[in-house]
Amino acid sequence: MLAHGRSRYAGVMESLMNSAEEQQPSSPLANEQPKPVGGFVLVHAGAGYHSESKAKEYKHVCKRACQRAVDRLKAGALAVEAVAAALVELEDSPFTNAGMGSNLNLSGEIECDASIMDGKTLHYGAVGAISGIKNPVLVANRLLSEAQKGKLSAGRIPPCFLVGRGAHDWAVGHGIPPCPSEKMASKFSLSAYKRNKRKMELAEKMERGHKQAKKRRQSSGNGNGSGCLDTVGAVVVDLEGNVAAAVSSGGLAMKHPGRVGQAAHYGCGCWAENACNMNPYSTAVSTSGCGEHLIRTMLARECSAAMQSEDAHHALLEAMQNKFISSPFLASEDRVLGGVIVLRCCRCAEPPPSPNIQGILVEFLWSHTTESMCVGYMSAQDSKAKTHISRLPPGTVSGQCLAIEGGVCRLTSVVE
Amino acid sequence: MLAHGRSRYAGVMESLMNSAEEQQPSSPLANEQPKPVGGFVLVHAGAGYHSESKAKEYKHVCKRACQRAVDRLKAGALAVEAVAAALVELEDSPFTNAGMGSNLNLSGEIECDASIMDGKTLHYGAVGAISGIKNPVLVANRLLSEAQKGKLSAGRIPPCFLVGRGAHDWAVGHGIPPCPSEKMASKFSLSAYKRNKRKMELAEKMERGHKQAKKRRQSSGNGNGSGCLDTVGAVVVDLEGNVAAAVSSGGLAMKHPGRVGQAAHYGCGCWAENACNMNPYSTAVSTSGCGEHLIRTMLARECSAAMQSEDAHHALLEAMQNKFISSPFLASEDRVLGGVIVLRCCRCAEPPPSPNIQGILVEFLWSHTTESMCVGYMSAQDSKAKTHISRLPPGTVSGQCLAIEGGVCRLTSVVE
Repeated sequence: MLAHGRSRYAGVMESLMNSAEEQQPSSPLANEQPKPVGGFVLVHAGAGYHSESKAKEYKHVCKRACQRAVDRLKAGALAVEAVAAALVELEDSPFTNAGMGSNLNLSGEIECDASIMDGKTLHYGAVGAISGIKNPVLVANRLLSEAQKGKLSAGRIPPCFLVGRGAHDWAVGHGIPPCPSEKMASKFSLSAYKRNKRKMELAEKMERGHKQAKKRRQSSGNGNGSGCLDTVGAVVVDLEGNVAAAVSSGGLAMKHPGRVGQAAHYGCGCWAENACNMNPYSTAVSTSGCGEHLIRTMLARECSAAMQSEDAHHALLEAMQNKFISSPFLASEDRVLGGVIVLRCCRCAEPPPSPNIQGILVEFLWSHTTESMCVGYMSAQDSKAKTHISRLPPGTVSGQCLAIEGGVCRLTSVVE
Repeated sequence: MLAHGRSRYAGVMESLMNSAEEQQPSSPLANEQPKPVGGFVLVHAGAGYHSESKAKEYKHVCKRACQRAVDRLKAGALAVEAVAAALVELEDSPFTNAGMGSNLNLSGEIECDASIMDGKTLHYGAVGAISGIKNPVLVANRLLSEAQKGKLSAGRIPPCFLVGRGAHDWAVGHGIPPCPSEKMASKFSLSAYKRNKRKMELAEKMERGHKQAKKRRQSSGNGNGSGCLDTVGAVVVDLEGNVAAAVSSGGLAMKHPGRVGQAAHYGCGCWAENACNMNPYSTAVSTSGCGEHLIRTMLARECSAAMQSEDAHHALLEAMQNKFISSPFLASEDRVLGGVIVLRCCRCAEPPPSPNIQGILVEFLWSHTTESMCVGYMSAQDSKAKTHISRLPPGTVSGQCLAIEGGVCRLTSVVE
């Protein structure tokens, strides 16, 4: 009887996009002496609805974000630095709902959420409802790196999560330049604000004519217009096998000031854990969609935990179905809206061609219950990123069905 | 080599404080016709260090908080209402670090965190870094109840987590009166602020003489003075078997403005889940201690999940040891500081004395790695609350060892 009871798994469209062969270093020179630096990045520009007209822009920004991360990896950066670099590019695009061009809140202001997690140290940094900072992910990253330095004066424990004005002041105090708020709104986000405000006022006028309490839930059907859910994120593995994940969001359009979504919530927006005694795989996850749904299901951490199963594709499908669409935590929701990108990796099982060559097998996947999700991915061995807009199969219902796709790639490095 | 490698389980001091017999209704009248209302409450006034001189005050406020919850339960309130009532009493005490008398932050201001979770609906509400509101838990509770009403105008999803100024304004807009900030500081919190500030300035002066980076971690040993960690919380079960949990905190003394601790963090500050197909027990947890440690280990949710094991005491001991003291997420911490109160319940297994009498078996526990933890508990069948200050056994080291205690009680109700 509940909406999620009707949910079904509508579209398995798995394709092994990068075969191991395709992922061999593309330059003959690199083949002769590959450097022990590199890795793989998978980014998303949000789960939501991407019109054909906007598709080109979204793909383009995903491509640039992948390139940025790969540039950092090639320069010897660890996963956590590379994932932050990808996020900066995604935030800087006026088309995404993160950093520049973020959704405006009810008061017409921009307040951003972002977080980052380092699978190597398991440290985490997050900012919520921060204004006047161009790249919220850089504040989250700085919180992470400051916390890794140990305690503050007089034994005070450094914060891992800062919000609002305090987060802004901490960032500026740590050398991150402020950005005037009016520069952060884009033409697109301003016109969306005006459109949404009119729509809201109209809806409230209509609702006033009815019993409001009865009406509230009924008005829920079609409130997830385009542009509302385009949180961005990325997951990275470096050639040492370290994973990292990050996420950044302007939040739901017309949100109440001070509202913090999943992008700042530990376990909900992103997750990264290197392999350890108990976990054979390193895993990294970044989510997008309706923040409250992603918070209450702790989707990033749930997907990360699921990835320790043998079959990654099947495990993600089950997690999205049982821990998200049919989650008891969202039993009262008619549509459960979200998407994830997931990466898991381990040392290659088969013997390498030479004893001083190590291989990392990377499996990467994305899945969403929203109309569409835009992703891009690239290994340091590729000449350019691949991008893709994944869509629910025709005839399926967003919020009740899901799409899942992915691929594998093999990273090789020479041990000196 | 790591600090947590040295940790050991130092003090099992379990005592079955309330036997089933003791828990029978105390009034003869009630024995003849017990009302189908009632329940059980367990509260804490923080894991930290409670001097003998302050012990009386802490016990007193725990007693009052239990009584408040029981009054609500007797009046027919569900668990979530009763838990909020207990929290209001705990917040109103100038001795606890929550609501009135909270720790001051670096700027000399009070910013509070609070959250509440309803095990019946699995809804959750939280506020972070909120100023000028006497009872932050009432804002969290209002967010929870508003979210349960369904979507806002134009299909907007109601927030479950608000921070800072936005949270304050939302609260006032929903009829919760503001409280001038200067009224929220107590004589105790103001003098602690001045003392801490002097201590910090002195420490910074000394550190400036050394290489700061090297010095930072070394100054970590004794920074957890009294009064820093006295977050408050409660867990409740009503006679229908619904559980609820809540937590409220002024945060670490001298925290950076905008810092949000575990008390506002989903899965970290509190957790409540009614029994369901997959879980035989209803569980509720509330935590206290160093926010960053409790966030990064998601201690409330971990303890709740552990409580589905057969032996509650053993499960909590293992969770505190493996998921907290020895957690890989806190591998770099020399001392891991926190405490939990835990409640789990199920329908009594043994046949009731009469077919129209139902029984609920409640197991309740507390455990902490801090010097001490103050708790109180009471069932609606008791004439007054019991209180207790649990302490680590002499000779054990806080942050590396733990204490664990608890009891059981049976609730009975007549089915009409």
